[in-house]
This record gives sequence, structure tokens and C-alpha cells, in this order.
Amino acid sequence: MNLLPQGMQTLIDALGALPGVGSRTAERYAYYLIRHDPAKAQQLASALSGLHSSIAYCPKTFALIDADETVSPLYEDPKRDKTLVAVVAEPLDIVALEKTSAFHGTYHVLGGLISPIDGVTPDELHIRELVARIKEDKVQEIILATNASVEGETTALYIQQQLEGSDVKISRLARGLPVGADLEYADQITLSRALEGRQLL
Amino acid sequence: MNLLPQGMQTLIDALGALPGVGSRTAERYAYYLIRHDPAKAQQLASALSGLHSSIAYCPKTFALIDADETVSPLYEDPKRDKTLVAVVAEPLDIVALEKTSAFHGTYHVLGGLISPIDGVTPDELHIRELVARIKEDKVQEIILATNASVEGETTALYIQQQLEGSDVKISRLARGLPVGADLEYADQITLSRALEGRQLL
Repeated sequence: MNLLPQGMQTLIDALGALPGVGSRTAERYAYYLIRHDPAKAQQLASALSGLHSSIAYCPKTFALIDADETVSPLYEDPKRDKTLVAVVAEPLDIVALEKTSAFHGTYHVLGGLISPIDGVTPDELHIRELVARIKEDKVQEIILATNASVEGETTALYIQQQLEGSDVKISRLARGLPVGADLEYADQITLSRALEGRQLL
Repeated sequence: MNLLPQGMQTLIDALGALPGVGSRTAERYAYYLIRHDPAKAQQLASALSGLHSSIAYCPKTFALIDADETVSPLYEDPKRDKTLVAVVAEPLDIVALEKTSAFHGTYHVLGGLISPIDGVTPDELHIRELVARIKEDKVQEIILATNASVEGETTALYIQQQLEGSDVKISRLARGLPVGADLEYADQITLSRALEGRQLL
């Protein structure tokens, strides 16, 4: 015997497919939607139905764009410096960097990170397009803004090797203590990177 | 300028309405759905569209039921004892109690807990229906299975007062140390309840 109505169980199963959502969380989401205005569930349903048809990937930067745009509006913005490119793993990394308001160049989304365990090889990432873009846009500096993880470091190293011989400057995001962190609680690797990258005052 | 396509932003806003989902989590869910098979998003969309039309509340126990059922199948099950009723706040509490396999009575869902702060008065809960049910089903014992919170205790006390004079047995879920818990780390109230409710061996 089912303890929950079929319609609710179907929704719980579908919600359970989202990352980090277990059955308890899915139950909570489903029950919230049941208790509230049906309009809320319909709104979410229509946002989901329209999702894939309304978005596209920019063929130049591989950022997410509206389906009716041809190139990322950020890339086309004349105020942005096309000769400075931040290389990121995923489109959402652009949002994180833009929130700092500290970067005025353009972006290049790799579409993932090299990960032999997950079977992601360099060929599946937009590295070739990055190399082509360096020539087309006369790029002068590339900032490798990948995660501070094994996959992020591997991908950064691979791109660095691919660009050997070209005269583009390559930099990487600084590693060190996060702002507000206690030195006492920092892990050894972060601390040794902070030492290596120490800055003269 | 929008950093994300409109379709994705609409979905993020709709997902952000779910309980405990902030903008970062909503972004993660939305990006997961974008990267995966469009069928997954469609599946979720159709589960949501059909949600409210496929479910109903049992008029007797106020549990969630399929729209084509008239009464909760658990209540109609001849193996369940109708004279023993567990009173719970929400339909999902039934799932939690059923998972124990330790209860063979039936349920009564209040549809919330008395909470003056949130403006929930006893009139909005299915307490009248509980009183009526006691006569109809010749209920002999009521287990007040509300949360161990202020609202849960208040509601239990209110129901107890409403049933004064009737000869139905009223019990409450035991309060005490959760199984596996360290006495050292238990809070004072839990510990004093565990002392009050000590059992002779």
C-alpha cells in the first residue's frame, strides 16, 4: 500500500533527481508545493517546460545565453576588454566572478574540468576554441580561474602547456587564506600556498 | 545586463520559493537540469502540473489521498485498529510513523499545530473532526503524536482539555534520550523529561 498519493510520489521521485536532494528533502519540497497556491507549482512547471528551448550556449565564450541571442551580451559589450580572458569551468562561475565587480575582461567557459575518474578528457572541453580565440581577439592575458581542486589544477596545467610558445601572459587566481579565516584552522596545503604566494609590503 | 539567460533566471526564481532553497542552491538545481537530458526537466514539469489535480485530502483522517479515492486506504484497511488513533500535525508524519512498523492503529491529521505567533488557532485544525470521530469509531485510545516543540505541546494540551470528561484514554509519545545519544550532551529539558519518564525494570 502506498502511504502517499501517486501524484505526490511521482513528484518526490522527480525532485529526488536534483543534486543533493534526498527523499526527505524531496518530500518536504513536494508537501510545501501541495500546501501552497497551485499557481506556484504551475509557475515552476512552466519554467521547467520552457527551460531548454529558451537557452543556448554562446558559440564564442560558451556562456549560457538566451536562445534568441547569437553571442553573449557580456562579450559584445564594448566596455569589456576582449584581450583579457578569464577561463572558468562552468557558466555559473561567471556569476561568481561578476559579483566581485573586480574583473573587466571577458570569459571563456571550458564546460567542465579534466577528470580521468569521471572520464572527462581535454578533448571534451572548449580548449581548442580558447586557443583559436587567442589569435582572433589578440588576447594578451589569460587568467586561469578554475577551482582550487585537483581537477582545477590539472586543467590549468594542461592549458598552460597548450599555450607554451605563444606570447600570451598566463596567470592563475591566488591561493591563500580566505578573508576572515583563522590561521590556526587553515589546512596545511592552503597555508603552504599562502607562504609561497606571500606579498612584499 | 543579465548574467544568466531569462529562462534560467525564471527557473531559479521559481525554485528559490521552495523551503530552505536560497539563490545558490536554486542556481545549482537549474544548472543541473540544463546540463542533463531535457526529458528530466519535462518529467519534473509534468509531475508539477498534475500535482494538485491528482491529490485530495481524506475527509475522515485528513491524510493525503489519490483524487480518485474517497477515504484513506490505510483507514479502510480492515487490519488497522480504528479504535486506536494517532494524532499527527502533518500528512508526512504518517510516513515517519509507518516506517517504524510499530503502530497498527489509524491516523488523524490536524493540518498544523496551534501557533499564536503564526496566527494558527485551534479552529483551523481538524480537532472538531477528531472529537466527532471518537464517537463514530468508538475510539478507545488517542496517542498525541505531535512534535516535541512548544507548538506541539500546546496543541497536545489543548486536545487533552477538549476531551476531558470523555472516557477515551489519552497518551503522548515518550520524551527522553534519543537512541544512541550521549547523556553528557543531552540538553537539560530532555534529560529532566527522561528522568520524569524513567521506567521500572
